[in-house]
Amino acid sequence: MRPGLRDVTRGRILFGGDYNPEQWPEETWREDVRLMREAGVNAVTVGVFSWARLEPRPGAREFGWLDRLMDLLHEHGIGVVLATPTAAPPPWLGRLHPDTLPRTEDGRIEWWGGRQHFSHSSAAYRAHAAAITEALAARYADHPALTLWHINNEYCTADHGDEAAARFRRWLRARYGTLDALNTAWGTAFWSQGYDTWDGILPPRTPHHLRNPAQVLDFRRFTSDMLLECFTAERDIVTRHTPRVPVTTNFMPLFIGQDAWRWAEEEDVVSVDLYPDPRDPLGAQHGALVQDLTRSQARGPWMLMEQAAGRVDWRAVNHPRPRGLHRLWSFQAVARGADAVCHFQWRQSRQGAEKFHSGMLGHAGERGRTFQEIKRIGAELALIGGEVTGTRNHADIAILHDWHAWWASAQDSRPSARVDHPAVLHAWHRALWEAHLATDFAHPDHDLGGYRLVVVPQSYAMTDAAIDNLLGYVRAGGTLVCGFLTGVADQDDRIRPGGMDARLRELFGIDVLHEWWPLEEGESADCDGFRGTLWSEEIEAAEDATVEARYTGGELGGLPAVVRRDRAWYLSTLPEPDALRALLTRIAADAGARPVLAGLPARVEAVRRGELLFLLHHGRDPVTVDLPGPHTDLLTGDKLTGQITLGRYGVAVLRP
Amino acid sequence: MRPGLRDVTRGRILFGGDYNPEQWPEETWREDVRLMREAGVNAVTVGVFSWARLEPRPGAREFGWLDRLMDLLHEHGIGVVLATPTAAPPPWLGRLHPDTLPRTEDGRIEWWGGRQHFSHSSAAYRAHAAAITEALAARYADHPALTLWHINNEYCTADHGDEAAARFRRWLRARYGTLDALNTAWGTAFWSQGYDTWDGILPPRTPHHLRNPAQVLDFRRFTSDMLLECFTAERDIVTRHTPRVPVTTNFMPLFIGQDAWRWAEEEDVVSVDLYPDPRDPLGAQHGALVQDLTRSQARGPWMLMEQAAGRVDWRAVNHPRPRGLHRLWSFQAVARGADAVCHFQWRQSRQGAEKFHSGMLGHAGERGRTFQEIKRIGAELALIGGEVTGTRNHADIAILHDWHAWWASAQDSRPSARVDHPAVLHAWHRALWEAHLATDFAHPDHDLGGYRLVVVPQSYAMTDAAIDNLLGYVRAGGTLVCGFLTGVADQDDRIRPGGMDARLRELFGIDVLHEWWPLEEGESADCDGFRGTLWSEEIEAAEDATVEARYTGGELGGLPAVVRRDRAWYLSTLPEPDALRALLTRIAADAGARPVLAGLPARVEAVRRGELLFLLHHGRDPVTVDLPGPHTDLLTGDKLTGQITLGRYGVAVLRP
Amino acid sequence: MRPGLRDVTRGRILFGGDYNPEQWPEETWREDVRLMREAGVNAVTVGVFSWARLEPRPGAREFGWLDRLMDLLHEHGIGVVLATPTAAPPPWLGRLHPDTLPRTEDGRIEWWGGRQHFSHSSAAYRAHAAAITEALAARYADHPALTLWHINNEYCTADHGDEAAARFRRWLRARYGTLDALNTAWGTAFWSQGYDTWDGILPPRTPHHLRNPAQVLDFRRFTSDMLLECFTAERDIVTRHTPRVPVTTNFMPLFIGQDAWRWAEEEDVVSVDLYPDPRDPLGAQHGALVQDLTRSQARGPWMLMEQAAGRVDWRAVNHPRPRGLHRLWSFQAVARGADAVCHFQWRQSRQGAEKFHSGMLGHAGERGRTFQEIKRIGAELALIGGEVTGTRNHADIAILHDWHAWWASAQDSRPSARVDHPAVLHAWHRALWEAHLATDFAHPDHDLGGYRLVVVPQSYAMTDAAIDNLLGYVRAGGTLVCGFLTGVADQDDRIRPGGMDARLRELFGIDVLHEWWPLEEGESADCDGFRGTLWSEEIEAAEDATVEARYTGGELGGLPAVVRRDRAWYLSTLPEPDALRALLTRIAADAGARPVLAGLPARVEAVRRGELLFLLHHGRDPVTVDLPGPHTDLLTGDKLTGQITLGRYGVAVLRP
Repeated sequence: MRPGLRDVTRGRILFGGDYNPEQWPEETWREDVRLMREAGVNAVTVGVFSWARLEPRPGAREFGWLDRLMDLLHEHGIGVVLATPTAAPPPWLGRLHPDTLPRTEDGRIEWWGGRQHFSHSSAAYRAHAAAITEALAARYADHPALTLWHINNEYCTADHGDEAAARFRRWLRARYGTLDALNTAWGTAFWSQGYDTWDGILPPRTPHHLRNPAQVLDFRRFTSDMLLECFTAERDIVTRHTPRVPVTTNFMPLFIGQDAWRWAEEEDVVSVDLYPDPRDPLGAQHGALVQDLTRSQARGPWMLMEQAAGRVDWRAVNHPRPRGLHRLWSFQAVARGADAVCHFQWRQSRQGAEKFHSGMLGHAGERGRTFQEIKRIGAELALIGGEVTGTRNHADIAILHDWHAWWASAQDSRPSARVDHPAVLHAWHRALWEAHLATDFAHPDHDLGGYRLVVVPQSYAMTDAAIDNLLGYVRAGGTLVCGFLTGVADQDDRIRPGGMDARLRELFGIDVLHEWWPLEEGESADCDGFRGTLWSEEIEAAEDATVEARYTGGELGGLPAVVRRDRAWYLSTLPEPDALRALLTRIAADAGARPVLAGLPARVEAVRRGELLFLLHHGRDPVTVDLPGPHTDLLTGDKLTGQITLGRYGVAVLRP
Repeated sequence: MRPGLRDVTRGRILFGGDYNPEQWPEETWREDVRLMREAGVNAVTVGVFSWARLEPRPGAREFGWLDRLMDLLHEHGIGVVLATPTAAPPPWLGRLHPDTLPRTEDGRIEWWGGRQHFSHSSAAYRAHAAAITEALAARYADHPALTLWHINNEYCTADHGDEAAARFRRWLRARYGTLDALNTAWGTAFWSQGYDTWDGILPPRTPHHLRNPAQVLDFRRFTSDMLLECFTAERDIVTRHTPRVPVTTNFMPLFIGQDAWRWAEEEDVVSVDLYPDPRDPLGAQHGALVQDLTRSQARGPWMLMEQAAGRVDWRAVNHPRPRGLHRLWSFQAVARGADAVCHFQWRQSRQGAEKFHSGMLGHAGERGRTFQEIKRIGAELALIGGEVTGTRNHADIAILHDWHAWWASAQDSRPSARVDHPAVLHAWHRALWEAHLATDFAHPDHDLGGYRLVVVPQSYAMTDAAIDNLLGYVRAGGTLVCGFLTGVADQDDRIRPGGMDARLRELFGIDVLHEWWPLEEGESADCDGFRGTLWSEEIEAAEDATVEARYTGGELGGLPAVVRRDRAWYLSTLPEPDALRALLTRIAADAGARPVLAGLPARVEAVRRGELLFLLHHGRDPVTVDLPGPHTDLLTGDKLTGQITLGRYGVAVLRP
Repeated sequence: MRPGLRDVTRGRILFGGDYNPEQWPEETWREDVRLMREAGVNAVTVGVFSWARLEPRPGAREFGWLDRLMDLLHEHGIGVVLATPTAAPPPWLGRLHPDTLPRTEDGRIEWWGGRQHFSHSSAAYRAHAAAITEALAARYADHPALTLWHINNEYCTADHGDEAAARFRRWLRARYGTLDALNTAWGTAFWSQGYDTWDGILPPRTPHHLRNPAQVLDFRRFTSDMLLECFTAERDIVTRHTPRVPVTTNFMPLFIGQDAWRWAEEEDVVSVDLYPDPRDPLGAQHGALVQDLTRSQARGPWMLMEQAAGRVDWRAVNHPRPRGLHRLWSFQAVARGADAVCHFQWRQSRQGAEKFHSGMLGHAGERGRTFQEIKRIGAELALIGGEVTGTRNHADIAILHDWHAWWASAQDSRPSARVDHPAVLHAWHRALWEAHLATDFAHPDHDLGGYRLVVVPQSYAMTDAAIDNLLGYVRAGGTLVCGFLTGVADQDDRIRPGGMDARLRELFGIDVLHEWWPLEEGESADCDGFRGTLWSEEIEAAEDATVEARYTGGELGGLPAVVRRDRAWYLSTLPEPDALRALLTRIAADAGARPVLAGLPARVEAVRRGELLFLLHHGRDPVTVDLPGPHTDLLTGDKLTGQITLGRYGVAVLRP
């Protein structure tokens, strides 16, 4: 059995961040470890961007500095999450092997001078990456500070160049076997795109007019798979050296470029980077969504690899985190399953492209407000680690999410460019989150039997197996709610007869789907008791279907808006937030799914993890929460009977 | 004499659409012909995107499937508009002949994977296109289903690459003879652009700062001419095989890339693709404009080659056509001279880049609302075909339009980027359309003697001959109304002395044109009795000119806004819609041009074609129209005396 | 000692413009000189875009036309500002030497067909430019019309190609000596960018993700330096031939691409092109800023090389100058130190990319309003030339501006993309301009001792020397006011410890700079008595600092907004215009700096130059100004006692 996060945490929540000591003189390292201890840091990620330092010239190896650093950290009781440095090749790699540089769909080269300028398909890149990984693993396999392997960083780079084209053809050959099968799957009969040789196939390079959507879809699959090959190649090297040290790579949150379900299966530890906007009124919900998704991929505790202690630098206007917010969001992650709360980065850079991205130790230094808050968080996480780590979250509701459905839908020439897959996902998750209904995420192929309710905000493209899975779930007594644009296409982005899968139409009681009526910005569709947004539909319900709501005006007046057959619901529009929350709350209640806590004040989030109840107050004015019986607050030691008062951005971790 | 549309229609309005059977198994073809007959389809366009199917490998010929299809269609009485497949070369052409791929002005290659990725200048493309055209024509010359040739599709692709550069030089050499003449015409004395050899001349590739406008203008002429060469080359091949079968290629509506006047002269049948936005309150007027323009180019009946039975897929939000609208707009085309009402496409695709573009038979299938409406339209067109086809429309008013004037004006570094040639054209046509004044379009070189009124919304660049033509027209008693930015430049985009041709200034009574005062978005210029938009001018009228309206405020207060000498009017601003309509209605009345019908309710359009009176109701609430005497409605058979009531999107075809 | 502007003016204000006679037949030249004399033109710039005319084929020399032109001008008493034609190489240069064409950071070639398509780094370009310059200088060294040399035109073109890369490496080697020094300065330890050979260094070509900011900064320095090398190479050639003829090149106003302080040191005459928007309510202030900056660079009188007599052609909507405005703005330049008032261009082009840019003699010709106004200006400038030329402006206040600070701040991934260096500069200058406080500009290394007040709107990156200079200035009794984001980084864009230089924090009384709180569009920060915009800060003042204003709401409520220690003020936000004006007026008064004139009506600007008092009325309604004693108006000859009334756009040049 592979090692996992439990082998690393052993009762402590990991607390720390990326540490890039290359940027600092060694005397600063001493100050760093002193301050890390002061802040309760017990793990740092080292080496993410060290390739040019470790291998300053092709084949050179300079490990001395890293030896000293690892020893120093170990000496101070700080574990090392050791990264392979392959996300940022040194300039010499591009110079000596221009074929390692990716090309965009427009044919532009992505040069060195930034980061992630490597082609996943380049044999030269792969060979050099393997060599430095091998050297790193061999050298530190037995180092006592070594805690976890961190492969590469935020894998994301596509490539449309010639070497990628060659690999794309091999990948397609493996997928389809014959050119006929490929021509059929891609629908090349349209627009005279039939391929007569494999050599004629290219990545989707910018054409005169519109790309083949199935080609784009497969190219996304290919890109995710090639990046995964890069990951597993490095993983296999390090696990050969250290079979007992778990391996991770850090996802970007809800990032379009990787099928994270599939990637998670190849990791020992699932980790994610999370940067909600402190100005976004729904920033906390975005955090909750990413946390729910990551936990579901990890099937248990997970690692928050990167967050910002303060400002980021990539928004147009980058706001700091107001006092208390960083603590609140850190505990939110723990509440939703994180056993590691880490940051990019420990010490804020003075130079380079990210010097305005905050650090745990910012430019203001020790006396800065940010570092003062970090110290408090470190101390508090230490208080609760023993009771939290390894425990699990439970949910009665699953939200379906599938990267392939997203990829198929995120294309040009669609019914409405306003329909954005992750935005729809957020809207549905928000409704459940605001209703304090705990949610997991699930893949369409997962066993859904354990859930009382499954919601499908949107799953444009579905395999037959996925449809069968949903049908079986409902047949077995489950309750299902689907949003529009679900089951429209198959896995090749081929529209299913009738414009929506016939079995699904039968399930929901839709007889004919006449037309989609997407809505303009600012436009809404009046329905019985609520307003629909974004989308509406001209459908004809089956005679025995139940029409739960109708459109009440305009061209669709009188036609069904929400229709169901028994426990299978279909929403042909996106109800406004309050209406969607009310509807899902009602359906969830009927299905037996209850909120974590009833009667909560606005902006207070309640999460159960294991035996513990987390209360998270996302507002600034004090509120009082009624508790279900006596609890002890692990952070204060207070024994509470009926109530607790939470101040600005207040947090309580309650043991019954 | 060349054959024409009359040889094809023979008393029937052509009704059908593009049919791409390559996308479907042959069993679906049987269903298709059954439903075509049910819908009254009598002609389909075949082969537009079949090159890769007909010639799957270089030199291969696979006609068997097309033989079977043509036979099947013929057997069911459905004529075939047979397309040469040259708009979408197979992947092997680009692979074996990279020089067939166009380059943008930025040097980017336009790859295969979409469509229209061919360079008009590529010798390899032309040779391969000729070969497949030859083979197609030879094979089906005697097929009884063959009705009309359809060459290529929506010609539009420019090329800035090296082979295009070589052809551009040859084209320029033919136009100018000497480098001196070219240097003079292009004004290369400015910015040191004098060419010392023909080899130094390039297509306008992106420079550091601004392009030579005369070079851009000639490149547009060249592009139109090269595409036309591609058309005539294929036309000549098919007419050699089938001298009695007429030939067309489908225009895009008011498309900037082709001088459609010149192209129309090379066609036997003029056809156009028309996609008004169903949400645009002026969608019907846009349709009317394109129909008037196409009819004028055809000098009689024309073919609506493509329209959408429902949604398109290339707008940001793509709305379906509400119930009845497609019928209304189909009859509008017939009213304005169409003898063929066709669609893209018959059966909506399940795959490919355009699968969300509606079909006559949509994803919803036979029971779908769209197909039900199609059947009604087919049946009704059959009712009126005998009385309509071949008849002509009459207009007393001509609107001047010239692609070269548009090309010269659509450039960078102009007085105002807000002045958009087609938008100005639309504004003027709208005024006449809303006043129920029937309009033709005319080229500046046309004989205008048959019109009571000629309007020139804007003709920035004019040849001496065109100016003489206008002067002669007025001298002979015609009434002329011109908008601003007319006669400013000559055919080389050389500003005429005084900033506007002296003869035109003399004609209108303008003594000095001091300054143009373009207006900002949201800004207007107050005038006597109306507000001007978009533009205003500081002009000095001649003493004997009549100032019909003055500016009443701002810097121009008191200066002439509308000036005329006798029957020659000049508008130095664009009056708001109501004011422009009132002004043109008054001038038209003075010139003896009358509305089709007086006293029409709002949103009802009246069009006379031959003896018939078409009434088209663009609103949703029933209206009653007073008729000039008794009529019979050909659609219902009703005999009407004084009135007719039109329901939602109602249509009546009335015979006196 | 080098010659200067005084050697050219000799008691006359130069009045004229660019003259491009290549565009016109020689008979037009005769008309031109007649009208020039009529308009009082005494100098024209010739040859800016004549390369292809002078050297139509490589090595050819055609000077005959220019001989005739120079003689003609001389014969009519018009001096020639003779330009080297190197800003617009002929097509043959790019054709024969493709390496002379620049490349963008995306790798795109900038082709001929426009202008400025030369690489500063191309050896071939430099050689050809030197040769034509040599020939020109040799031929006209002794021509009596030769007045001033004008090198190239609006130097601006960057290059990211291979030849530029090679020069960039040489430049870096000269700057840093060793690769270690470069790696340190660029912070290449971040993101694994350490260079192992000089050959690995490139211009900042578009990467996958973010560029190295120090590389971008150095590339800007390099580009400015290479363009300056091109300038000095040509300057050295012409001064070898004509040691007594001064040399200039025309700057664009506040253009980011050149360190104009450094360039000015290499010029004999400092000249600038100035095109305020006639619709911009602050157009006159923009003019004043550019004039103050140019005068400061020139350390005395300067040359307005280009302005538009009417419309430009590069805005979206290009407005003419309303009657009187051009005169007003021309006198504003003289008031602020211009001894030359010139235009682009004399006669408006009929062809080419700039034919819609106005001329002194527009398309409307002699009778046009524009030319009538030009004649008036020419006559009036002649009236005052003797009393104005050579005199100086005095200011008690200096505004600090440094291109390197701008370059360092104008990058991606900053705290706020809304903070725009020149916009902040404009906001501060506006406050002083509206308060009628005369201002110079100064470089951070300049001796500031002569000023009563120094303001630093923003100087993000500062050298130690610059900081020492400010400290010394305050120590010596000066008053200093700094805006936020000042002293944040050093010359390598390396953040100074604490997020702001410690000596500056000490100077202003800032103990800890916790966080920057940039403000969103439309957001403001309430402070005692005013509202802050754009930016706010969480700072902790030192105990002995004076908090002049506090934030009064939001997260920063109660914290210092404006803090000072003695005469050193720090503004952590940008007060709204009225508040900034009031604050600076108060500080200036305390420092002993007084407005030019007290009690001026709104929109009247007063400027002193030498003994003269210029009054400039930027409004359209007449106003009366109280005068400090009797004056004579040089334009009218009127002797004024207590008052003067200024009409629409009125100007008075008053001698006490």
